[in-house]
Amino acid sequence: MTLLERTVQRIEPQDATCRAAAHARLEQLTMPYWALGRLMDLAEDLAGMTRSLRPPLGRKVVVTMAGDHGVVAAGVSKYPQEVTPQMVYNFANGGAGINALARLAGARVVVVDLGVAADLSELAAKNLIVSKRVGPGTANIAVGPAMSREQAVRSIEAGIEIAHDLAASTDLFGTGDMGIGNTTPSAAIVAAITGCTVAQVTGRGTGIDDAQLQRKIAVVQQALSINKPNAGDGLDVLAKIGGIAGLILGAASLRKPILVDGFISTAAALIAYALEPKCGEYIIAAHRSVEQGHRVALQHLGKQPLLELDLRLGEGTGAALAMHLVEAAARLLTDVSTFEEASVSKANA
Amino acid sequence: MTLLERTVQRIEPQDATCRAAAHARLEQLTMPYWALGRLMDLAEDLAGMTRSLRPPLGRKVVVTMAGDHGVVAAGVSKYPQEVTPQMVYNFANGGAGINALARLAGARVVVVDLGVAADLSELAAKNLIVSKRVGPGTANIAVGPAMSREQAVRSIEAGIEIAHDLAASTDLFGTGDMGIGNTTPSAAIVAAITGCTVAQVTGRGTGIDDAQLQRKIAVVQQALSINKPNAGDGLDVLAKIGGIAGLILGAASLRKPILVDGFISTAAALIAYALEPKCGEYIIAAHRSVEQGHRVALQHLGKQPLLELDLRLGEGTGAALAMHLVEAAARLLTDVSTFEEASVSKANA
Repeated sequence: MTLLERTVQRIEPQDATCRAAAHARLEQLTMPYWALGRLMDLAEDLAGMTRSLRPPLGRKVVVTMAGDHGVVAAGVSKYPQEVTPQMVYNFANGGAGINALARLAGARVVVVDLGVAADLSELAAKNLIVSKRVGPGTANIAVGPAMSREQAVRSIEAGIEIAHDLAASTDLFGTGDMGIGNTTPSAAIVAAITGCTVAQVTGRGTGIDDAQLQRKIAVVQQALSINKPNAGDGLDVLAKIGGIAGLILGAASLRKPILVDGFISTAAALIAYALEPKCGEYIIAAHRSVEQGHRVALQHLGKQPLLELDLRLGEGTGAALAMHLVEAAARLLTDVSTFEEASVSKANA
Repeated sequence: MTLLERTVQRIEPQDATCRAAAHARLEQLTMPYWALGRLMDLAEDLAGMTRSLRPPLGRKVVVTMAGDHGVVAAGVSKYPQEVTPQMVYNFANGGAGINALARLAGARVVVVDLGVAADLSELAAKNLIVSKRVGPGTANIAVGPAMSREQAVRSIEAGIEIAHDLAASTDLFGTGDMGIGNTTPSAAIVAAITGCTVAQVTGRGTGIDDAQLQRKIAVVQQALSINKPNAGDGLDVLAKIGGIAGLILGAASLRKPILVDGFISTAAALIAYALEPKCGEYIIAAHRSVEQGHRVALQHLGKQPLLELDLRLGEGTGAALAMHLVEAAARLLTDVSTFEEASVSKANA
């Protein structure tokens, strides 16, 4: 059995007993019934994921997957492809948005080269990034598949390996991404898997204008027409379009909560979900971005995001921001007294 | 000139030069234009409020104002009035929701007795709370005014004094509240000031049923009919209905950002805003609660909240949760490299 097959097989639902015990305690806290709303729902989820009434969350990691996309040759982005490696250097130097927000969250940033179209061996040699290169970027999906099925398996297993390598030192994962052009395959993934039209799920990415948006929609449409990804087969979608999905499967198999960041990460979650829907029980949606396909993708997963701040950066920034809320949810289970403990009168019947 | 008059006079708009300098730097950060959306808007606001491109935020305080409301005699709440002092004890012992969330945020909680219908001198003597009692709770607004105009001034000045006392050790304020029955006067304040109907702004508070909600709407209507608060005179509204407003005015006069928590705090902000609209330039709306009048009140202030998590606890819990986002906004100004600093290529023209 392959690592991918073993991982998928190991993903189990949340634990119902721990959920019920958490629910019972949350109902007794010194506040009106369920008065902290979705934070209490999340506390119950965390208990179910981690099998604990004291969900450990102290050790946080954002995994930012970097890769290039051949489809930039079709003119879908405002930025040149050289920005992908430049931003990886920026991550390594601690100067990017994700570095700032992860530092504030008390989270490590682990940058993974999954296939950047540049030589980053210098950074890998210094352990500033982790090299899991599947290739020098995907092929142009406007003319053919992004990669072979074998490469798709390798790219997912790279994410699973990252989850395993970090597991002993990580309680809470966050996903992140970097790669010029990446909203284009993400839109294609969301359209393929949800069945929405391309126009419904294709947005402005880094900020393209109306004419560029029309071009991008045509490119996504062409990618789907040429490659005909099978929505029921996550591996087929990943091979034909691109994407990341392994970290989510890995975290879920390890019963660790994983905060899914923005549009690109949520497209990855759709592929993970297509491979094994139970992984959804470990996914926390960090935020809803301005990228219009994100709403549809979150709906497909049945997830309501924690934040909605008009973010559209990626890198894992929304996941880093939401970590505080996840920790807050866990604190409700451990740090708030019950009516009995605090001698506070209950509501009238 | 009274303390209230001096305070109102000292409130100045945000500084336009600092806002412009912050905006210019934010535009140069290594990310697509304004890609962190509302977090960047907030960073610009913080620069304008604090007159600094490195807005200090390290020292955070949530001020939880406790007081009782005579209108509970009209049967508007599920909980007995004794819960107000019991919860103050719970705050002092560190066992309430606000204690847990403030600890996580790295914020102090300062509990103020503004008029609890119980003897809390034991806690004040131990410096576990601050006593600023205006009286033993307000009178029943269903039959007459909540307090005299002189008492209203004292209650506002109590909040201003708290702001002054904490100023030397506080960079970021959060508002909070505790007091059984307090959504009832808050609904009356919001209806009086915004002109919305009572039914539009009266919600279920701690969780009353349909019959109780109809009763509460009738009580709020009666309070407005009997007292006829003058919407153009914040002091008149406060005297006739009740409320807290001084902390917001005090913080604004000190050019300190203040996170306004939920429905009760936002009703207080409406009164502060009626007294001096410029205080709104220092207000950050922490969240939108499930209490239906909150949406209307935030619209009146022109504020979009940072969080929407179906909270309805009060105490300052939403403000404590949002502090992380405020700090994150400031970090964008100080911790993220520009394109030039990081040698990253800009977008194509």
